[in-house]
Amino acid sequence: MNRLDSSAQGVYLITVTPFTDSGALDLASTDRMVDFCLEKGVTGLTVLGIMGEATKLTAEESRTFVKQVLARVNGKVPVVVGASAPGFAAMKELTDSVMDLGASGVMVAPPPSVRTDDQILSYFQMVDETLGAKVPWVLQDHPVSTTVQMSASVILRILKNSPTCVMLKHEDWPGLAKLSAIRAASDKGEVKRVSILTGNGGGLFLPEELTRGADGAMTGFAYPEMMVDVVAAHARGDRERAHDLFDAYLPLARYEQQAGVGLAVRKQLFQDRGVITSAFVRKPGPKLSDKDLADIALLVRRQDKRLRELA
Amino acid sequence: MNRLDSSAQGVYLITVTPFTDSGALDLASTDRMVDFCLEKGVTGLTVLGIMGEATKLTAEESRTFVKQVLARVNGKVPVVVGASAPGFAAMKELTDSVMDLGASGVMVAPPPSVRTDDQILSYFQMVDETLGAKVPWVLQDHPVSTTVQMSASVILRILKNSPTCVMLKHEDWPGLAKLSAIRAASDKGEVKRVSILTGNGGGLFLPEELTRGADGAMTGFAYPEMMVDVVAAHARGDRERAHDLFDAYLPLARYEQQAGVGLAVRKQLFQDRGVITSAFVRKPGPKLSDKDLADIALLVRRQDKRLRELA
Amino acid sequence: MNRLDSSAQGVYLITVTPFTDSGALDLASTDRMVDFCLEKGVTGLTVLGIMGEATKLTAEESRTFVKQVLARVNGKVPVVVGASAPGFAAMKELTDSVMDLGASGVMVAPPPSVRTDDQILSYFQMVDETLGAKVPWVLQDHPVSTTVQMSASVILRILKNSPTCVMLKHEDWPGLAKLSAIRAASDKGEVKRVSILTGNGGGLFLPEELTRGADGAMTGFAYPEMMVDVVAAHARGDRERAHDLFDAYLPLARYEQQAGVGLAVRKQLFQDRGVITSAFVRKPGPKLSDKDLADIALLVRRQDKRLRELA
Amino acid sequence: MNRLDSSAQGVYLITVTPFTDSGALDLASTDRMVDFCLEKGVTGLTVLGIMGEATKLTAEESRTFVKQVLARVNGKVPVVVGASAPGFAAMKELTDSVMDLGASGVMVAPPPSVRTDDQILSYFQMVDETLGAKVPWVLQDHPVSTTVQMSASVILRILKNSPTCVMLKHEDWPGLAKLSAIRAASDKGEVKRVSILTGNGGGLFLPEELTRGADGAMTGFAYPEMMVDVVAAHARGDRERAHDLFDAYLPLARYEQQAGVGLAVRKQLFQDRGVITSAFVRKPGPKLSDKDLADIALLVRRQDKRLRELA
Repeated sequence: MNRLDSSAQGVYLITVTPFTDSGALDLASTDRMVDFCLEKGVTGLTVLGIMGEATKLTAEESRTFVKQVLARVNGKVPVVVGASAPGFAAMKELTDSVMDLGASGVMVAPPPSVRTDDQILSYFQMVDETLGAKVPWVLQDHPVSTTVQMSASVILRILKNSPTCVMLKHEDWPGLAKLSAIRAASDKGEVKRVSILTGNGGGLFLPEELTRGADGAMTGFAYPEMMVDVVAAHARGDRERAHDLFDAYLPLARYEQQAGVGLAVRKQLFQDRGVITSAFVRKPGPKLSDKDLADIALLVRRQDKRLRELA
Repeated sequence: MNRLDSSAQGVYLITVTPFTDSGALDLASTDRMVDFCLEKGVTGLTVLGIMGEATKLTAEESRTFVKQVLARVNGKVPVVVGASAPGFAAMKELTDSVMDLGASGVMVAPPPSVRTDDQILSYFQMVDETLGAKVPWVLQDHPVSTTVQMSASVILRILKNSPTCVMLKHEDWPGLAKLSAIRAASDKGEVKRVSILTGNGGGLFLPEELTRGADGAMTGFAYPEMMVDVVAAHARGDRERAHDLFDAYLPLARYEQQAGVGLAVRKQLFQDRGVITSAFVRKPGPKLSDKDLADIALLVRRQDKRLRELA
Repeated sequence: MNRLDSSAQGVYLITVTPFTDSGALDLASTDRMVDFCLEKGVTGLTVLGIMGEATKLTAEESRTFVKQVLARVNGKVPVVVGASAPGFAAMKELTDSVMDLGASGVMVAPPPSVRTDDQILSYFQMVDETLGAKVPWVLQDHPVSTTVQMSASVILRILKNSPTCVMLKHEDWPGLAKLSAIRAASDKGEVKRVSILTGNGGGLFLPEELTRGADGAMTGFAYPEMMVDVVAAHARGDRERAHDLFDAYLPLARYEQQAGVGLAVRKQLFQDRGVITSAFVRKPGPKLSDKDLADIALLVRRQDKRLRELA
Repeated sequence: MNRLDSSAQGVYLITVTPFTDSGALDLASTDRMVDFCLEKGVTGLTVLGIMGEATKLTAEESRTFVKQVLARVNGKVPVVVGASAPGFAAMKELTDSVMDLGASGVMVAPPPSVRTDDQILSYFQMVDETLGAKVPWVLQDHPVSTTVQMSASVILRILKNSPTCVMLKHEDWPGLAKLSAIRAASDKGEVKRVSILTGNGGGLFLPEELTRGADGAMTGFAYPEMMVDVVAAHARGDRERAHDLFDAYLPLARYEQQAGVGLAVRKQLFQDRGVITSAFVRKPGPKLSDKDLADIALLVRRQDKRLRELA
């Protein structure tokens, strides 16, 4: 059934949730988006994350959307579902529901209320109990959104305590030293080796993170092929090519990662590329101005030129 | 149909959500709790607040609990339901569902992400659109939990913009000056007069707040009769009696308002008073130690003595 | 020279910094305030804390004020100086300066930037190096102002690492369980026994904290005799008397502890009691309204009556 | 005496504070750094900012450093001094001191405690009163470090209220829409036109910000010539060249802007370029690992190659 495991690598794209211009779920665009991602070479999908506007969906819409994605993916790659919730009853309810539908695992970030190492450890022990022995899960370390600071030593203790935690989504920033420390610990056999996929700002440190031992990326970007190609170049040992590709996309990636307005940029680019029909973002959410659109057009044009030079 | 309106006054008790010792919803205790509150003279009930462990319930449990409360109340007093949600789709889903069941209105606090005056105003304009013209709602101003600071001028602008906002739940601390400013504005006719019920820490400033123009309290405390009696004494102009009663309960109220452990204290007191069968708090949540129980026993004994002297 | 050590107990009052009506340092009032505190039985003084408006003083004013206090105290009780600073150079500069003048020790709280257990431990190791082997210091645990959450286990590790940390200023809230855990550890010999003085909101949990093993209080309140008398009653085993006294002052103590406006209340009460000449608070700071003054008058009158009944 | 005024443009580099390997102020490196900046074409300098380790200096060291910088600059360009302080007495003390030494103006950011629009406006009114009629000042809008969110409308009101505020240091992120709104207001004559220099992460949005009406940059980066050249290319209407230059430096600029470790990267690059003798960062501060140094070496090599291609 395509359970997530610690050998995961490559690019797990965090999808958007497509809406029509009137704000309804757009299932046709959902199918096109899945097809697009698979064509571009992603090795997994992650849905219902922050950038998937998960909190703006009704429970019914969430189920419908996950079902549609799973049906279209049809087992070709694993699908991870965001299951962070303010309480364990809701976390279990959502997890059971999506695992029944065929999800490969869930992703959990700590709530802002946990602060000390003891509180963090105790929280993830409860996550472990809640999810049970059969649900593989991803530990999401994203202090910018959660405000929770997890040191390398705390992450290692969570990995030791939890048999079913198979992946770390690494989004701390600065995080290169942390990434190195976690990899060093599994290299020395002090802890099991889990998959580490990185997400910093649409992969804004991807080449450096791969060098430190990341297995790939789990993040959103309207050009998933950048990450797929960078990971591939790195895997075959061609670091210069990895950097060349990365650098070509960096000016636009940087623009797409602006806090607040970034999701609107991403959806606009997906619309421009014909992936989704409408760039609609549900409230509360940003809208792009003409000046934003002009910035994007210039960056895309320059990116296309640069990629032709690299080809 | 008992719609909430701006004439609301007295004590709206924020209820706990009773569980059995094994953590299941306890509907028999729910009924007893409703009866207890009505007997003590509350003029309204508020359910699914933070202290009602709302985030720890599944969607199904929330519905079941609200339904049970509404059935037992049977129209005797208005019932307000907490409807704060990270997105408007979920807010609407919950609101429609509970209004259909017979709720009298909903209560909404701003999410931590809104910060500037403009953002706050824009957020509540969306709340207004989401709830529609038929749902009376309560503006909850509780910076300690939301981290959102709403100045008196912002609150007044929300009241001006929103025809269906009928009540302010005042929980800012310090808030006496703000309360005075809001009351002064409606006294001068600059803005409509809404009901103001206060909630600071179980009513820890209730006598002063009544003097400043509050219409009563909306908060939780295992001795709702304190608030009912203080409001009544104040209403008949007997300020000394209001303070005497308040002072008698203050040492225990203070203990019950400890951040973190407070809910466990409240449920323990409800259990001790025979209102609910079990003091069980769902995870993540505090547990009382023997030392805590000894503190409570001493404070209850002293409170009983003091009340006898006052009788 | 009256070095602070781990046998400290009783009441260390956190003083205000008196200004004239025009905002200048008022050294005559400073002398009267010192005399007043000594007469009321405090066993120590703490200056340049948050409630001492330390950040609103120039470096020169800080030195002048500390010098005046130390001269007036003249060795009768220890004087602790707040030395929290954004950097270690400034911390050392201030510490050296006040220790030269005759201070008994300094108090340090962690900066908001430290978050994980490792960061906290590493910070206090640097504090230890900065202060050197000869300066006794107080660890201030006040999450409400610092936003830093220190678990009991982290505090115990700081105490183990630092030979010169002789006191914990306990201001976490809820903190009773933490206080019990720290005392249990020293009772079992797992860590040295340090003095624990508590400060929660002007001592709003003082009786319970004494029962858990606190050695007294370090906080501000315009009626230091309350804390002195409560500690004395507790010390001679008369818990009921300790609670009676505490309860008599609680309504006013609660009012004086309002966040934001509290310092203005305290200075007003000191002025009313003839301790300082002016209740002036430097900007940015709160001002009391006529309604606030009326509240205070009522609470003082009721407190006086209650104390007469108890006498 | 080179007072700062609203016509300021170009690049105001935020300098580091050079130390020797043993952590002492390095005045010889300070001179070299000033010379280096002037040679590269900066139009101003800003000292004692966060990235200048201002909080880690003693008061004496701050004065010595500012004096040295001012002497070496010798009036060739304006020098702005960071004067944010927790209280107004210290702000005035520092401002008077540096203006006497010959500084051109000061920069002030709001403290984390101000939150609502009213609080922000009231704070800057006090700043204005504190600085007096003769000190030009820069309003720093940097929510990432201050946590204070200032909307465009609040900034416009501050500009209206304050005759001596002559510059906005724009570091909100996302901030392009805000920048456009502020420029539109002065274009329409609704408010005076002030200089806007931008600082987002070492200028990570510099080309877009110039297009929106920024007059240049005020930030730190070990390659100030990038910003100087980008501003110059933009000024002569050559947007493609501005982007080409920007893109060439972007991979390293991004690396230097890592939160936490960034200052160590910048000082290392300054050391490698022969600008300062030691990359020493005072505690608490980051240290670079061998892996970090390898990353930097690779990025510098690639940047050099790219610049040769562009030449």
